[in-house]
Amino acid sequence: MATIRKSARSTHPAAERPHPDATRRSQRSRQAIYDAALALVGEVGYPKTTIEGIAARAGVGKQTIYRWWSSKAEVLLEAFLDLGEQAVQAQGQQEEPYAIPDTGDIAADLKAVLRATVDQLYDPKFEAPSRALAAEGLVNEQLGREFVAKLLEPSLQLHVDRLRAAQAAGQVRPEIDPRIALELFVSPLAQRWLQHTAPVSYAYTDTLVDYALYGLAPR
Amino acid sequence: MATIRKSARSTHPAAERPHPDATRRSQRSRQAIYDAALALVGEVGYPKTTIEGIAARAGVGKQTIYRWWSSKAEVLLEAFLDLGEQAVQAQGQQEEPYAIPDTGDIAADLKAVLRATVDQLYDPKFEAPSRALAAEGLVNEQLGREFVAKLLEPSLQLHVDRLRAAQAAGQVRPEIDPRIALELFVSPLAQRWLQHTAPVSYAYTDTLVDYALYGLAPR
Repeated sequence: MATIRKSARSTHPAAERPHPDATRRSQRSRQAIYDAALALVGEVGYPKTTIEGIAARAGVGKQTIYRWWSSKAEVLLEAFLDLGEQAVQAQGQQEEPYAIPDTGDIAADLKAVLRATVDQLYDPKFEAPSRALAAEGLVNEQLGREFVAKLLEPSLQLHVDRLRAAQAAGQVRPEIDPRIALELFVSPLAQRWLQHTAPVSYAYTDTLVDYALYGLAPR
Repeated sequence: MATIRKSARSTHPAAERPHPDATRRSQRSRQAIYDAALALVGEVGYPKTTIEGIAARAGVGKQTIYRWWSSKAEVLLEAFLDLGEQAVQAQGQQEEPYAIPDTGDIAADLKAVLRATVDQLYDPKFEAPSRALAAEGLVNEQLGREFVAKLLEPSLQLHVDRLRAAQAAGQVRPEIDPRIALELFVSPLAQRWLQHTAPVSYAYTDTLVDYALYGLAPR
């Protein structure tokens, strides 16, 4: 859900081969495969996306894909990780460390990361493939759990880290469970985006943060 | 998302025919069609569910279905409304009015309705077809919007009503927008159920209500 992702990517085999031309060719092929996989899953959905189709669209042989990945799920997982990293780089942020900035103001920091998440969710490059994968994850429990474990949960853990720092700073009550607390602002945005239940705006996500921090009951 | 639903069902044509045997036969056919539609969509998914398949499984002619509904989406919509009503009746509640009970304690009332929602979401009769439809709604925007408008939003409005009553009673701040506020506890449960992001329990939904009402920041 967040723009900033912890990378679960394995070291790429190409890194083991020192020849610069071969490495460049591998990187170009890999990027073409990612682009093809994301485009296809967005256009035809997960069930109809095949290794053969990805290879044809990327202009590589099927064996090139099978040499690096064992399934289309793994190709897509790495393609999404790559997309997340591109988004981070496009924002001019360092690739490492992946963390929600800590300016000392938990409300401002959460509002900023939610606004960035809105930008990513409605980015045309990201939206169709994400939606197709989320849909498949709802009915294909194994795929759903893998994508949650490798993509969604690592980004949620960044919110856990930031909320823990806010607890240490006295801005969030110490007895709050950060893993549940983050859902008060992350899940409403996820549901509006996924299910089109209502419009999304920066004003909306700012409001979620204020309500979550200060509660609905009179203070 | 809630157990208690406002009915959007149209008056059934059978009600216009006074002959008791014909009415009974119609009601039996209608129930068989609902059951067949829910079973099929849960088993093969929305795209592969057809009017022909529903008719065959229900043991009725295709024309019987087309006499009452114009599309499989409409059959499924009414089948879900019927399922929601059965759940309400099984809990021994009156069919009307559809409302979240008001005991004067907003925290207790929200916890009770979320616990009932958990029971419904994990009810085997409900879970597979709901998940199949939710998945289709993610990629089929028109279907998604129709199900949100006719099924989800009416149940969310019950939360709006209950939060408004809590505002009148001084238990929720007057400047809070109830349509956003309800998402702080409804959406996290929806996301855990939909995406298997983490386990669901009564303790979890109780915690969501406490966090939403009393906030994460020190009071």
